[in-house]
Parts: sequence; structure tokens; C-alpha cells
Amino acid sequence: MSFNPVEMIRSKRDGETHSAADIRGFIEQFTAGSVADYQMSAWLMAAFQRGLDERETVALTEAMLHSGDVLSLPSVKAVKVDKHSTGGVGDKISIACGVAVPMISGRGLGHTGGTLDKLEAIPGYRVQLAPKRFERVVREVGVSMIGQSARLAPADRRIYALRDVTATVECIPLIVASILSKKLAEGIDGLVLDVKVGRGAFMKDLKSARALAQALVRVGSRAGKRVVALLTDMEAPIGRTIGNALETREAIEILNNSGPADTRELTLTLGAEMLLLARIERALPQARARLERALADGSALERFLRMVKAHGGDVRVVEDPERLPRAQARVEVLAARTGFIAECDAYALGLSGVALGAGRTRADQAVDASAGIELFAQRGERVTRGQPLALIHARSKSLAQTEVARVGGAFRIASSAPKARRVVLERVSR
Amino acid sequence: MSFNPVEMIRSKRDGETHSAADIRGFIEQFTAGSVADYQMSAWLMAAFQRGLDERETVALTEAMLHSGDVLSLPSVKAVKVDKHSTGGVGDKISIACGVAVPMISGRGLGHTGGTLDKLEAIPGYRVQLAPKRFERVVREVGVSMIGQSARLAPADRRIYALRDVTATVECIPLIVASILSKKLAEGIDGLVLDVKVGRGAFMKDLKSARALAQALVRVGSRAGKRVVALLTDMEAPIGRTIGNALETREAIEILNNSGPADTRELTLTLGAEMLLLARIERALPQARARLERALADGSALERFLRMVKAHGGDVRVVEDPERLPRAQARVEVLAARTGFIAECDAYALGLSGVALGAGRTRADQAVDASAGIELFAQRGERVTRGQPLALIHARSKSLAQTEVARVGGAFRIASSAPKARRVVLERVSR
Repeated sequence: MSFNPVEMIRSKRDGETHSAADIRGFIEQFTAGSVADYQMSAWLMAAFQRGLDERETVALTEAMLHSGDVLSLPSVKAVKVDKHSTGGVGDKISIACGVAVPMISGRGLGHTGGTLDKLEAIPGYRVQLAPKRFERVVREVGVSMIGQSARLAPADRRIYALRDVTATVECIPLIVASILSKKLAEGIDGLVLDVKVGRGAFMKDLKSARALAQALVRVGSRAGKRVVALLTDMEAPIGRTIGNALETREAIEILNNSGPADTRELTLTLGAEMLLLARIERALPQARARLERALADGSALERFLRMVKAHGGDVRVVEDPERLPRAQARVEVLAARTGFIAECDAYALGLSGVALGAGRTRADQAVDASAGIELFAQRGERVTRGQPLALIHARSKSLAQTEVARVGGAFRIASSAPKARRVVLERVSR
Repeated sequence: MSFNPVEMIRSKRDGETHSAADIRGFIEQFTAGSVADYQMSAWLMAAFQRGLDERETVALTEAMLHSGDVLSLPSVKAVKVDKHSTGGVGDKISIACGVAVPMISGRGLGHTGGTLDKLEAIPGYRVQLAPKRFERVVREVGVSMIGQSARLAPADRRIYALRDVTATVECIPLIVASILSKKLAEGIDGLVLDVKVGRGAFMKDLKSARALAQALVRVGSRAGKRVVALLTDMEAPIGRTIGNALETREAIEILNNSGPADTRELTLTLGAEMLLLARIERALPQARARLERALADGSALERFLRMVKAHGGDVRVVEDPERLPRAQARVEVLAARTGFIAECDAYALGLSGVALGAGRTRADQAVDASAGIELFAQRGERVTRGQPLALIHARSKSLAQTEVARVGGAFRIASSAPKARRVVLERVSR
């Protein structure tokens, strides 16, 4: 029986439900090149308009997953759990985790940063490892963080590129299939999802973020994985740094049992969920206590150091973060009035980071590891007129100067202290 | 200001209305190659789902029209009126019209036939004329029928090809823009539309055909043309022939003041509307009487003969239709019972015609001019068991045999006479 892509598009166009076999055939033929890009984009738009139900999303995830290599890491005996964030500003948690993880990460795009770019701020760190070597590092060190290879979920890569240029990005089933197909290709048993909510996130409001989190948990569970999602605040940046070397430095501070309270809190909360999924602990307080001990006794830092070494990175940087790339120019941003930081706009600061060279607007752009913004004041803190709010790091004074107004404008200073905001807003599990 | 195709797709995706300038920019960039096929197909699917209003459809029509050459025929002083059918089975009316027409036609596709294929059944007839020569034939003969050149509405050709493979064909605004952009490129003042309704037509029911006719008339009028549409029956084939040479023979019979009553009726009705649009007559009865005189006194036939001659065709074929290509094999289909022809399925007979070689399923296929089906009985007629219902014409006896069951099955024979059916069901004007 010959599979007909036009009939597939028509069926979704008219709001019908696809069988798993049809979705599999469609993605297989797309990967093989017999479904054209213009057919896929018409189907994506039909799916955007008509939706995909949970069974269809599972089938799409699995079809995209099997469009390329799927790692199984047979020699790794431990339960394999990963963590994935939907992307935010100042989001350096992955690096601070310190638990056994086979993590395949992406680069930053738009106003959000990427794990790979942050790791590459460490001189020598290689984000591409052969599958066998990746497996050995996970087995021997307990954690390895690499970049996506061309052979991992290739259908997702092509579909994502099409979605980006055909206005079909903001569609929960398509987002879910894209995230999970890549993560499932790591050969994991469990996944902790950090779904960001707020102006600095992809999902701007709690309702859409909750819908995404629920879909991720349900579809991931139906695909046979242990999945939990946390909705976390992304109105303001996490911690006190934006930019690759700056965030790597902050992550190392956390591993040194120091660093900003909010970064530490998010790291411990997500890490505890990972220990629970791995069934290393049975309850969150115990899991958290175990992580706190790992931070206090230096074993978390030592684990990170071994990973950097296994990836060819300069371990002296971990021991002395002053060795990380440093920008030529630094320009202070001063408080225009006295009061409390009522808002610190993660989106505006993310865009400033991109303009400074810390991020990219097109996938083929290089980033400047040293560029970024240090925040001296976080939401809720009291500041005095003339006090430095932030320090802009850039390759030149003139470039830094161009962002002073935007960085300053990202801080809203009010007369009274704002209401306290939680780091973790909700937890979504099966 | 740079035009952003992704924003254009997003806008229609979310149900917004495009400005005429945006539609013009989108089609211009598509024609120039800076909007990709996959972006056009995503937009087409969004337009399919969300619709285009009348102003958007006018803008799309005009943008597609101006994507290529637009004829103006400055030396033709007469009012220029054309006729267009949405496509049916046994639909040979264009050839029989006999009024002044600059007609640019298409080929058959799927179960419906095409004017060009029928004209090419006349040995020597050239469907490609240079614009200057086309203009001279229209001026001197009063009618010229040619094929679409690559320079006429090229955006429509590319969009149509995409719609065909992305399940975005059945969308009234897109159909309207496609038909009208090509017809308006002929440089006409008026257009009579024959919108077919029924199982042999593109529009299967009266409601959707009416919606298409109304949209064609409104959009054509807004584009400054005089437009009228007739909804005509396409449950059964028109006349007694299906296939290129067979239909050309029947058209010549009509021009000889003979031929099947339904073919004659449709020809006179559509022709009278053309005379009215051209303001040659002020009322339909007078217009019809004028056409009847032209058929009776041989002037209509003489006009057709001059057109064939101007196109390099063999005029002896017009004088003696027995000279038209004839199939090697002919096989009769007999009535299985005695009774009245209650139904004669135009769609089934159209598919049989394609299978016999009279039509094509892909645009690059050649057709067999001699292949087709002669119908000896039409809807409402009484037949006796064993009497021939049809004669299949094919290049071989074995090919003809393969269609006997389908052709026979297209006739439903009942005990009582069916209710009479009109040829013209409705008339739609401004």
C-alpha cells in the first residue's frame, strides 16, 4: 500500500486524527526525502490550526526520535536522568547540577542562552564526543554534556528549521515532540523539565506554560519515561550573571557552595527531582539534603572538574574562574533613583546580551564568551541613587555604551518593596 | 521597510486580514524567489483554514495577474468577452460558441477534459501563438483559442502546482484568484463563467458551487470586469461524446445547426450571456435569437473554420469530421435491462475516458486524441435490454474491454422515467 502525503495533509487540514502508523510513514518519508519541505510545512500549519492529540504527539515524538541514532548507553548501570530547561535568561543550572547525567544540549538562540555556549567558555572544552566516548564519560564520571550530532533526531532538526521560517513555532504538540525526541535519543530513563514562565521565557503566562508542562509530562510518560516538570519564574534573570563566561563562573560558585541564593535554590530543587526520578532518594527533603552535602563537601565540584577534564577542558579554570575569558571593556550602569528593584526585565536583558555578542539571532553566528552583564542588584533589593545596578562586559567600550540605556531601563525602581516571588511556581507530575 | 514573509504567514495563521500592499509584496517576492515554496505552502494552508475576504481575494488575483504579461489587445476595437468553465465531462462548449473571444485555455487534468486537447485533435492546429499573432487573429477572425504561455500569470502556475501537492486545492478564494488571474491576463472586458455542479464537477453540491460563483462574480466585478456566472448541471456528461476528437466532432455538429439538444442549449445560453456582456444585445431572448441565426445560416461554422485556418489547422476536418483521428478499436456496451436511464455518472465516465487515454492523471502525460466514449443514450431516455448504451473508442480492443464494466455501471436503469433536469440551474450576477 503506497503512503500518500497529500492525503495525510488533507486529513489534518480537515481536523481528522492520524494513526500512529501514518505519522510514522510521514516522518520516515520526510527523512528519506520523498515528502517535500513544502508538504511538511503545509502539514505543520494544518497541525498548528487543528492540533494533535496526545496519541498523535507520542507517535510524532517517537517517529522523530527514530529518524536517527538512539543511544542506549548499555555499559552505564546507573539510572540515567537528564534535566532540560525550555530556555531563559541567566539560566546556568545545568552546569551546576552535579548528578549523573547523559546530557545533549543546544546552543542559545534569540534572547535565551545555551548550555553549549556556556561550556565552551572553558578553554579546550569539546562539545562533540563520539558516542562511545560519551558513553564512557557518563559511565566513569557520571555526567557528560555534549552537543547534538547530525545523526540525532535529524527529522527534528529539519522540521525545527522549517517551523522557524513558516510561523509554526508556538504550537504545544510540535514543541513537545521536538524537545522529547531529542531528549529520548539520549537513552535516558527519566527527565526533569524546567518550564520557564514569564517575560524572559518562551511561555509568557502561567496558563500556556502549564499546558506545555502537562503535555510534556503526559507524552513523555506515554513514551515510557519517568517525567516531572517544574514551572519556574522567568520574569527576572536567574542569579546575577548573563553571558557565557560570566554564567559559567556563577555555576562554579554554586558548586563551591556559594553563589546567588536563587541560582542555588533552583539547582537544588531540580537536582532533588532528578534524584527522586533516579530512585536514589524517596522523598524531596532527603534528596535535597544529599545535594547540599555534595555541595558542602566539594564532591559536586570535583565531579564537574572530572567532566571538564574528560572533555579536554582546562581544569585550572574550574579551580580559578578568574582564568575564564574576560571582556576588554566594562561599563557600569547606575541607579537613577533610590528605592526597591520592583522589576528586572529578563527579556530586555536577554536582548542586551545578544547585542553585546553573548548570544545570536541566527543559528550560524559565533558568540563572544566574555560578553555579558553582571547584575549587582536583584528583584526586591534596595538600591541608592548612583549605586551600580549592573556591569556591562563587552569587547569594546563603545559597544558596551550602546546597551547602557536598555540595561538601565530593565530595572524598575519603586518606593516600596515588591511582593516576594517564588522561584518554583508549580510542580507537574503524572 | 523590509517585508517579512514569516510575519505574513503568522498574520493569516492567527486569522488577521492582510492589506493589499502586503499581498502584493508577498506574491512579488514569491515570483522573485525570495519567498520559498515551503513558506507559500504554509501560507496557503493558513489561508485555507482562516479564509481570505473579498478585498484580499481581489488583491491576490491582481498580484497574480501582474506577476507576468498582461495582454491589452489594443488593435481589437470590439468588446472582448471570454467564457470559462470550471471543468466537466463532455464539456465541449467553448469550441461551439462562435462569438468574438480572446481565449487562453488549459489542458485536461483528472477526470475532466481540456479545450486545448480537443483543439489539438484537429491535425495541424497550433495552440501556441505569439502575442502579436494572437491579437491579429482575434482582430481579424473575432476569436482565437490558445494555450497559456509561461509568461502569463507565472505566480498562479507555481501556486497551483503547490496547491495540488499540499491539499490546498478546494478553497474558494484560492480557486477564484487562480481562475481570474489567468482570464484577466487575456485583456478581456467581460467574462461568462460556467460553474459546473454535480458528481462530474469539482463542486459536488449546489451550495458550494453557488458560493464559488458568487465569489467569482464579486471579485471579478471588483477587479473592474463585467462578470456573470451560470451554475450548470454536471451529474451526467454534456452531450453524447467524451474524448477529444469525439467532442470536437460534436462541437462541429452544433456549429452545423445539429447535435445533441443539451449541448446546443448550453452553447446558446452561455453565448447569449456573452452577447449581453458585450452589449451587442440588450436582452437574452434577442441574444439567443441572434446566435440561432448564426448557427442556421452557417456563419458560426464559417467563423470556426477561419479560426482553425489561422491556427494552421486542417480545415478539411471541419468540413468533414470523419477526417478526425479515429480509434483502432471500438467496443459496444449493452443495456443489461429495459427501462429509463435514471442516472449517467459523469465522474465514472470521466475516469473511464482517462483510463482509455483521452485524459491524463499527471500534467506531463500525452493524450490519445481518438480515444473516448460515445453515448447512445442520455439521461431520461428509454432503453431496451441488449441495446447499445455506449461505444468505447480505444487504441486496442483489450484496452477498450477493460472499461466495459465501468462504462456500463455508469448507467443506472430504472423502471420509471426520472424527473426532468435543467441544464442551467441558477444564474449569478452582481
